Amino acid sequence: MRIAGRHYRTIWPEEGGAAVMVIDQTLLPFRFATRRLASLAEAAEAISTMVVRGAPLIGATAAHGVALAMRADPGDAALADALSILGATRPTAVNLHWALARMRDVLAPLPPRERPAAAAAEAAANCDEDVALCRAIGEHGLGLIAAVAARKPPGAPVNILTHCNAGWLATVDWGTALAPIYRAHDAGLSVHVWVDETRPRNQGAALTAYELGAHGVPHTVIVDNAGGHLMQHGKVDMVIVGTDRTTATGDVANKIGTYLKALAAQDNGVPFYVALPSPTIDWRLSDGLAEIPIEERSPQEVTHLLGQAGEGEPSLVRVVAPGSPAANPAFDVTPARLVTGLITERGIAPASSDGLRRLFPEHAPRQDR
Amino acid sequence: MRIAGRHYRTIWPEEGGAAVMVIDQTLLPFRFATRRLASLAEAAEAISTMVVRGAPLIGATAAHGVALAMRADPGDAALADALSILGATRPTAVNLHWALARMRDVLAPLPPRERPAAAAAEAAANCDEDVALCRAIGEHGLGLIAAVAARKPPGAPVNILTHCNAGWLATVDWGTALAPIYRAHDAGLSVHVWVDETRPRNQGAALTAYELGAHGVPHTVIVDNAGGHLMQHGKVDMVIVGTDRTTATGDVANKIGTYLKALAAQDNGVPFYVALPSPTIDWRLSDGLAEIPIEERSPQEVTHLLGQAGEGEPSLVRVVAPGSPAANPAFDVTPARLVTGLITERGIAPASSDGLRRLFPEHAPRQDR
Repeated sequence: MRIAGRHYRTIWPEEGGAAVMVIDQTLLPFRFATRRLASLAEAAEAISTMVVRGAPLIGATAAHGVALAMRADPGDAALADALSILGATRPTAVNLHWALARMRDVLAPLPPRERPAAAAAEAAANCDEDVALCRAIGEHGLGLIAAVAARKPPGAPVNILTHCNAGWLATVDWGTALAPIYRAHDAGLSVHVWVDETRPRNQGAALTAYELGAHGVPHTVIVDNAGGHLMQHGKVDMVIVGTDRTTATGDVANKIGTYLKALAAQDNGVPFYVALPSPTIDWRLSDGLAEIPIEERSPQEVTHLLGQAGEGEPSLVRVVAPGSPAANPAFDVTPARLVTGLITERGIAPASSDGLRRLFPEHAPRQDR
Repeated sequence: MRIAGRHYRTIWPEEGGAAVMVIDQTLLPFRFATRRLASLAEAAEAISTMVVRGAPLIGATAAHGVALAMRADPGDAALADALSILGATRPTAVNLHWALARMRDVLAPLPPRERPAAAAAEAAANCDEDVALCRAIGEHGLGLIAAVAARKPPGAPVNILTHCNAGWLATVDWGTALAPIYRAHDAGLSVHVWVDETRPRNQGAALTAYELGAHGVPHTVIVDNAGGHLMQHGKVDMVIVGTDRTTATGDVANKIGTYLKALAAQDNGVPFYVALPSPTIDWRLSDGLAEIPIEERSPQEVTHLLGQAGEGEPSLVRVVAPGSPAANPAFDVTPARLVTGLITERGIAPASSDGLRRLFPEHAPRQDR
């Protein structure tokens, strides 16, 4: 995507491969800055402190983290360490484990001297594939938006609500939930996005609004509390969100609060779609509520937030009464029964075992193949 | 209630009656300060800028605003002006109109020279009655909490989720939704309150957390997105919220986001109660979604918020990407079908016409009496 006229991905290797560059998402929307990650430790820290975030980008950064580790020490112990350290950075997103398993499968059989080059190539391939998956999601989702637009008066915008950031900043490029929106906008359809601010870290207000604004897509930021009211009054035509982990049965773990929007969508007959590249599916799981680990993050993300006073440097300000404790579960699970459809790189699947297996037969249990 | 050992109401007349004193709620939780309102204009401004807020306290302040106006000019034109100016300050809360109608009914028949004293007396009576109503709500709600406590293991806290601030800061004293919680805590029951921060103005994080903390009630602040997840995992035993206007059929307008919590409560079998003094009921209305006006407040309440950096003065910081527009509906309507019961000063009513009429037969249509 473009920022101030220049095309960026969210992550790219430095010339020569000694480091990987990322956009520091903790500084957006107030400052655009890149950060250089030159070691396994720096890659792991970038993931856990959310310098990079979004399930696909977490996976891509982890793959590059393994490549940086192999450059420093390509031995078996170093490989095992890298996989273990990166695997512990964030518990909910499954792309992380998918990307690390893929790196392990490529690197483990190789002699150590071949690992640095193979790891760099594999990390780069991971990024290119993510871009291709997101582009395909955009194509399939465009069809859904076009169908809604066809039922509206000419020129009336399709109002789409999204939660958190599942845009190009959450992936390598294009995004998941926002990919169909960018495609629709670029195709000349009139779209307008309701952007949930997405407390506690405000990825909607900070990142989604930033990237939609940069691309010129009409949008309005709302507090997370407002979406139900808008749906009650017919102001939302569809919801599209991303996901950090999806079960084989179509349950969806996504940013905390997604479940509340899914309930409101169902109560008001608004279609609720989840956009995901297939590496976000955890084929081993069948019960999202019982089986997906939910990350509990620091209470300080609730008690304090990053804001900008005037034109000054962004600073952390307290918003909770001093002395009051806070809790901070980072994700929730939306049961498949509330999901209208899953927008994948292979098309739209019903949120069910059958729906997913029909699109991804290679993951069906043996007896079904 | 007590602050630092001293008993306060949220509003009280200055000795001699030349002004009314209020707690400036825009400065909490960072600074406790009172403000002196010495004219109709100052009272109206305190309501519209939310120096005072909460449906019962808005009504009480409006009554005192009329008294201040009568002190300056007790003529018919001045009375009509005062009623009209105060009536336009906030559109959703109905207590405001109830309190103003009551002042009009008392004052209009009197000769002007008798109005100043009568207005001051009526405004004071309004405040005393509000305290009595809230105390009775606390008593009835206590029974509900005690019933839940009796079903839990000894010593296990009753976990109650609340949204916005319907505590003593929203009323003259005691509160509505929090009154049962204070009564239960004072009676030795173990209670723990999940406090929704309540964006955009953070009345939960700022006011509810502040007053629960001051009273020593265990509580945890969460973002508005988190309540559904907590309910899915059995961590909420009941929800109690306040209301700004309730229809004769039991639909409830309350702070934006209340509807989402009601949906989650229903989806998880969690009882959802609304606490209200009867002046909050608009007996003329039967369809909350169609008939209750929803206040649209300034987008700046979404794009900016008040926070405190370090120990400094609280300041307004931007949290939304510069250039992105915002929308700010301040209330939503929870349909009666999602409400387990209404906690009133006369007891618990089912959220229905029949339920409300049984407790308040004087408001039943003539043929039903």
